[in-house]
Amino acid sequence: MEARRAILDAAITLISERGYANVTIEAIAASAGVGKTTIYRWWSSKGDLALEAINDRVGEAIDFPDTGDISADLRRQLLEVARLLDGEIGVLFRGIVAEAQSTPTVGAALLDTIIEPRTRACEARLAKAVDDGQLRPDVATRMMVELIYAPLYYRLLFKTDPARPRDIALLLDYTLSGLRPVPATD
Amino acid sequence: MEARRAILDAAITLISERGYANVTIEAIAASAGVGKTTIYRWWSSKGDLALEAINDRVGEAIDFPDTGDISADLRRQLLEVARLLDGEIGVLFRGIVAEAQSTPTVGAALLDTIIEPRTRACEARLAKAVDDGQLRPDVATRMMVELIYAPLYYRLLFKTDPARPRDIALLLDYTLSGLRPVPATD
Repeated sequence: MEARRAILDAAITLISERGYANVTIEAIAASAGVGKTTIYRWWSSKGDLALEAINDRVGEAIDFPDTGDISADLRRQLLEVARLLDGEIGVLFRGIVAEAQSTPTVGAALLDTIIEPRTRACEARLAKAVDDGQLRPDVATRMMVELIYAPLYYRLLFKTDPARPRDIALLLDYTLSGLRPVPATD
Repeated sequence: MEARRAILDAAITLISERGYANVTIEAIAASAGVGKTTIYRWWSSKGDLALEAINDRVGEAIDFPDTGDISADLRRQLLEVARLLDGEIGVLFRGIVAEAQSTPTVGAALLDTIIEPRTRACEARLAKAVDDGQLRPDVATRMMVELIYAPLYYRLLFKTDPARPRDIALLLDYTLSGLRPVPATD
């Protein structure tokens, strides 16, 4: 598995240095000291390789904590996602999102390997918070995920403002203001 | 100005049919019946041309209404944006966002000609709603814009779910739940 490790690391290093669009499978192979066919044995495209490189590097760093406090847990997780997207991983991620706009197979792979698994993990944590009475029971957890993460991706992709930790935490607070249980009025 | 009109229309037709990445300035020129140099006299790149084609086509359709009811006005405007992004304009927009990830000049032009002017227009309407007591005075209007629009772009770019009008209206309702003035407690 040494070759596999070298390829994943080379993909991250090269893409983060040169930009996703400017890196070829050939360049990654050369940098990892393997042949192009070795890469194609394991991955069907640059997009597939980059997606695995992201998941491999991120590992468990953005799994959802469960301290019993949904606001604190989401803040910690969201700030860690923002931190990762601000570095090498962010360059890969933006490149894949860009390629996904013109290449449906890359879009489908992005959904299958990154967006949907992490959405489901977030939904599980949110569902527990609903059960605990910390979030509204009348909002679909899938929509909560969109409301919570979309502002971070907006800043990442449009570059309107940097995704400063303080801003990301504030945006989360405002979003959660609308997702807390409505106090009973009688 | 007939040539200019023909070029803008050809850009929208060709890009929406073939995808942004697959259309060249040469193809747009041929389709509009002009020479390539005519296009470069007015626009410096495909991105610049596509941005003007979007603004030209959209026109005043997504200006912010002001009926005095911020929820109704935002819903109407946001659903119109969603409708436009679901058609030809959406193909151009996604193509430009994709190119912006690897070409900083395109990213800057996207901000300057589309994102920032419309953000300022939205902020003006939101500021009036704050004055009218319909929105919280303690949230920056620039952040309100992000919270309101980000979920629509999330669906557009990630394709997690279609941007159905009913969903977009619901997401807006949940966002606004967190942006309404907090009732005084004493």
